[in-house]
Amino acid sequence: LSLRKVRMVLIATSHAGNIGAAARAMKNMGLQRLYLVQPRDFPSEEAEARASGAADILHAAVVCDSLAEALRGVSVVYGSSARQRTLSWPEVDVRGCAEQVAQLTSSEEVAIVFGRERTGLTNEELQLCHRLLHIPTNPDYSSLNVASAVQVVAYELRMAFLHSDSAEALIAPESEPLAKAEQMAHFYAHLEQILIELSFLDPENPRQLMPRLQRFFHRSQPTQLELGMLRGILSAASKKK
Amino acid sequence: LSLRKVRMVLIATSHAGNIGAAARAMKNMGLQRLYLVQPRDFPSEEAEARASGAADILHAAVVCDSLAEALRGVSVVYGSSARQRTLSWPEVDVRGCAEQVAQLTSSEEVAIVFGRERTGLTNEELQLCHRLLHIPTNPDYSSLNVASAVQVVAYELRMAFLHSDSAEALIAPESEPLAKAEQMAHFYAHLEQILIELSFLDPENPRQLMPRLQRFFHRSQPTQLELGMLRGILSAASKKK
Repeated sequence: LSLRKVRMVLIATSHAGNIGAAARAMKNMGLQRLYLVQPRDFPSEEAEARASGAADILHAAVVCDSLAEALRGVSVVYGSSARQRTLSWPEVDVRGCAEQVAQLTSSEEVAIVFGRERTGLTNEELQLCHRLLHIPTNPDYSSLNVASAVQVVAYELRMAFLHSDSAEALIAPESEPLAKAEQMAHFYAHLEQILIELSFLDPENPRQLMPRLQRFFHRSQPTQLELGMLRGILSAASKKK
Repeated sequence: LSLRKVRMVLIATSHAGNIGAAARAMKNMGLQRLYLVQPRDFPSEEAEARASGAADILHAAVVCDSLAEALRGVSVVYGSSARQRTLSWPEVDVRGCAEQVAQLTSSEEVAIVFGRERTGLTNEELQLCHRLLHIPTNPDYSSLNVASAVQVVAYELRMAFLHSDSAEALIAPESEPLAKAEQMAHFYAHLEQILIELSFLDPENPRQLMPRLQRFFHRSQPTQLELGMLRGILSAASKKK
């Protein structure tokens, strides 16, 4: 499944700025399809301003009269809502949702539905959702801004898609090669010799000095270039004797 | 470690609304400590409005003149910046960062630094960061709003704390306390001075020597004991002049 098959559906958003911020959040994470059910104020300058470079998402947004209309063609629907309900609904957290979505085949379309800023989803709308999407928040202050909710969900979707396609590395590999064990051994011998010259290390009473230094330098995994720099410093210290 | 030990540091934020939205994002996820380095417009009505129910975070925000001031007492510093750099810095993604932070002992303080809206972190500010924090984004549109970046990081921190039993330890839990930011700053000043004395560093032509050394020592996260040892070596090298 591609991220392009996921639509974000915002219901009756009252602040146009939130629509713009949601568009930006979507584009940042590689999502494209925004559906707006009865937005109070759209299109609007405020939405354009907050969308920043994501105006294309706004311009392609599909405005609908009802949630049912926004869900046409969709096979899996998640409803995001902070409101507590008496009727319990199958619930999943954002990460779980993203992992489920990443597993779907490319023929499926998915919708994530975000409720109104204050009142969330009506019961009728909730009936159209297959699962409730839970965003873990501080129990003392759980009212997440709707664009922030879109941001968190879009981020988790991106993460799930990156991980499902393990070819893409998240952390750039160091371009410089790390020092080899034998280079480290030479460095430690050099370091010990200089420390003795400097009277910092007493060979008669070495205590734990070298093991501690080794533990420290091992942990930092110097590159070959960095090790060369450190050895240069040792040589400079030695020449000054 | 508690989420309360994590401070979010916003540098020279130009839009007050972003400060308010960041405060709200923090409170939603259970974070409390906001630091503002030279905010352009603070306090402000716009920040209050966007903070919604998180005005308490705004009112308790610490305003600083410099990043160094905002990092006092902090032992682990992550810098979030979209800007590409020639000198590569140790990098971790948000989830990895959150897992590392969740493993730290309760005596450590952590800072996550967010750069300016347009230009990110200066090189001087980057030098104060131990690791770069990478938020995976759409390569075609990677300019994340600063409050959105705070939201994603705060969300991952909350998730890591909720799951901290199962999180993989990426930084070995050291029983010894780590060196604080200001102790590292003293060490670097001392190191630079000695390297000049040793004629290893030419102040007229410093090239990339100090940034490279800082990157190396940041990565290894010395404990206070280890830092004492390193400074002892510097003093010994200096006495021999």
